[in-house]
Amino acid sequence: MSKANDPSLKSWIEVDPNSDFPIQNLPFGIFKTQSSSPRVGVAIGDNVLDLAIMNKLGFFDKLRIDNSVFTNQYLNDFIALGKQTTNAVRERISQLLSADNSELRDNKEAQGKVLQYISNVQMQMPVKIGDYTDFYSSIDHATNVGTMFRDPANALLPNWKHLPVGYHGRASSIVISGTDFHRPKGQTKPNEAEPPVFGPCRLLDFELETAFIIGKSTSLGENITTENADDHIFGMVLFNDWSARDIQTWEYVPLGPFLAKNFASTISPWIVTLEALEPFRTNGYKQEPKVLPYLEYNGDKNIDINLDVFIKPETAEETLVSHSNYKFMYWTMEQQLAHHTVNGCNVNIGDMMASGTISGPTADSFGSMLEITWRGTKPVKMKDGSERKFINDNDTVIMRGYCKKEGVRVGFGECKGKVLPAK
Amino acid sequence: MSKANDPSLKSWIEVDPNSDFPIQNLPFGIFKTQSSSPRVGVAIGDNVLDLAIMNKLGFFDKLRIDNSVFTNQYLNDFIALGKQTTNAVRERISQLLSADNSELRDNKEAQGKVLQYISNVQMQMPVKIGDYTDFYSSIDHATNVGTMFRDPANALLPNWKHLPVGYHGRASSIVISGTDFHRPKGQTKPNEAEPPVFGPCRLLDFELETAFIIGKSTSLGENITTENADDHIFGMVLFNDWSARDIQTWEYVPLGPFLAKNFASTISPWIVTLEALEPFRTNGYKQEPKVLPYLEYNGDKNIDINLDVFIKPETAEETLVSHSNYKFMYWTMEQQLAHHTVNGCNVNIGDMMASGTISGPTADSFGSMLEITWRGTKPVKMKDGSERKFINDNDTVIMRGYCKKEGVRVGFGECKGKVLPAK
Repeated sequence: MSKANDPSLKSWIEVDPNSDFPIQNLPFGIFKTQSSSPRVGVAIGDNVLDLAIMNKLGFFDKLRIDNSVFTNQYLNDFIALGKQTTNAVRERISQLLSADNSELRDNKEAQGKVLQYISNVQMQMPVKIGDYTDFYSSIDHATNVGTMFRDPANALLPNWKHLPVGYHGRASSIVISGTDFHRPKGQTKPNEAEPPVFGPCRLLDFELETAFIIGKSTSLGENITTENADDHIFGMVLFNDWSARDIQTWEYVPLGPFLAKNFASTISPWIVTLEALEPFRTNGYKQEPKVLPYLEYNGDKNIDINLDVFIKPETAEETLVSHSNYKFMYWTMEQQLAHHTVNGCNVNIGDMMASGTISGPTADSFGSMLEITWRGTKPVKMKDGSERKFINDNDTVIMRGYCKKEGVRVGFGECKGKVLPAK
Repeated sequence: MSKANDPSLKSWIEVDPNSDFPIQNLPFGIFKTQSSSPRVGVAIGDNVLDLAIMNKLGFFDKLRIDNSVFTNQYLNDFIALGKQTTNAVRERISQLLSADNSELRDNKEAQGKVLQYISNVQMQMPVKIGDYTDFYSSIDHATNVGTMFRDPANALLPNWKHLPVGYHGRASSIVISGTDFHRPKGQTKPNEAEPPVFGPCRLLDFELETAFIIGKSTSLGENITTENADDHIFGMVLFNDWSARDIQTWEYVPLGPFLAKNFASTISPWIVTLEALEPFRTNGYKQEPKVLPYLEYNGDKNIDINLDVFIKPETAEETLVSHSNYKFMYWTMEQQLAHHTVNGCNVNIGDMMASGTISGPTADSFGSMLEITWRGTKPVKMKDGSERKFINDNDTVIMRGYCKKEGVRVGFGECKGKVLPAK
């Protein structure tokens, strides 16, 4: 076990037991303040540690990192240093924040320079995303969709259990948590017998997902195996793959979703490293039939991440509409990456690969309104008495995620976005 | 008409009448030599004009362009100067290369510094591609595919004539002409009753396409109209959307092509500006039924670009297998861009948007082996006596394209790639 993951570690910085950011987490992000340009930070409790100033003050001297890596609007250059270095930075920060280490604890002047309240900073996109891929790897989600739109007796398509189905998505419209956007307009066909019409999407949905960020590039022709996949995964974020269901229905045959998805996707700002998530590995669904050899893997590769979705109407408090878990994934990240590159497709640092909607086996764990309300037939009651079939104008959708074990909670913070009325 | 497009213009540099690069073209690219780093160049006949040195020597002084724009491994910063400036650069180069202009013509010393033989330079990827989109906009291609795989009586799917069907593709594996790659491996299902198998793709195909490059970015929520679309299109290249048909058949339902496409796509190195293509605009297929208002457009928006595909076996000369034309497109670039952004999806400089396979109405103008050999049932005879159903190992596929009118030929050069055996 990494020393930084030790459940008994405590920080001299007070961290609320319900905080997503104890000393065992130390996720990386990009923040700016009113007076400072974008730079690399690490979350600890209610604080952000400014790595650019930390480095300048000599706290990372042994690691010999050029400060341009930290005074940067993206984490890509930091990630490109390689896991040996980025893990060493996390370990060093863990050491510096430990209750029994006096270097920073007893240096109030340095603390004043390197610590900011999270509430005073503005989080930015953590990485410059090259390519973005979305998978479709939750068996409960795929089964629900197949049951609704195709045949309950043959809900899963023939390929589904043989390969992690995936497709390419739009990177440019992936935005950071807190970015509002307007309800998309588009072409739909509400009446079978009538021509298509143009107007605001009527069936706007969220999709509860996570995404992982590529931490090590490959060249064209190279393959990543399930065994070395973890070397290529820097960390994870929460991901809301906003979907316009009515646009999707009309456009998606035969080449897949396009305008139904590419108007916006929202991510949480802190990248939780794969290393911080290691203690929460668990097993997943048994894969039957047996997968082809390039998709086989050893050990526990699922991760026990609690995932909650809330809808907050404009003038009311939020209501929990789903409680799911990343452990319900049928295909693991390692398998997704092995599959993605088995044909020689190259990946780059900063590429983002999303899980697909993460639904669990029970109705309260479904990861989209489509499934939760079963195509709108079972509306969800909000705390303010209103009902939702899909997402209304001025609703904010908030996703939260965290692992918990042996008293340690390693979380992701929030992934939220508000839907403004169509322009 | 732009002065640079004047068919009567002649250059003091000798240009073969069959050259793709007369003074009326002046396409932009990135080249390097054994002794120089990557930089911006313009093709003229058999020569490349080095814009970095041209600028340094003061030939563009009135335009006040920072030389870092030209000593750059990508054209993105140049494109970002905006069409007013990039067109002014093209006009200025046209002036300087005109037979009646003495500035460079009579300055042998400068010529020695700014001109290189094309055969001595190595072309590079012209732009840093952000997102890549592939459309499916040739009616003859969509009809052929629908006839083969679905129902000849209803070959086009219901949405096809109402919107330009498109999907997101992989940007990382788009490579420059001349880049060889290995036949991809993947999962296929050759026998309906048997489980899928893993191995080298057996049905490797090309797709004859063009692609346009975004020249002006938009913000999330902004729309591009058919009317202002041309402001956002910098220029075009030839595009080979290599496709693994057997992988595609098994993987693509329901979310579209993925590993069947993302192992490699090849582009030609010179970006022919939309301005150089303007004289070759022509009308296209009549769009019936009438499209929705956001897809309507005025004037001739198709372009008369001859497109040829050749297969060159390892040890034999090349054989022409298709002669198509970009004018056969049903949906125009302007409509594609208006559709792509009607939901608020943002585009960035350097994004690439491909046409989809460009087939004409007759068998000799089909844009893929799938169509040319009608799923392999009508093999094509090569000049060396061998036959092709799809692409063999060590075959090179070469695409060439050019416009011709009033004695002026504006071309794209070559888009070629060789398929090495699977690793």
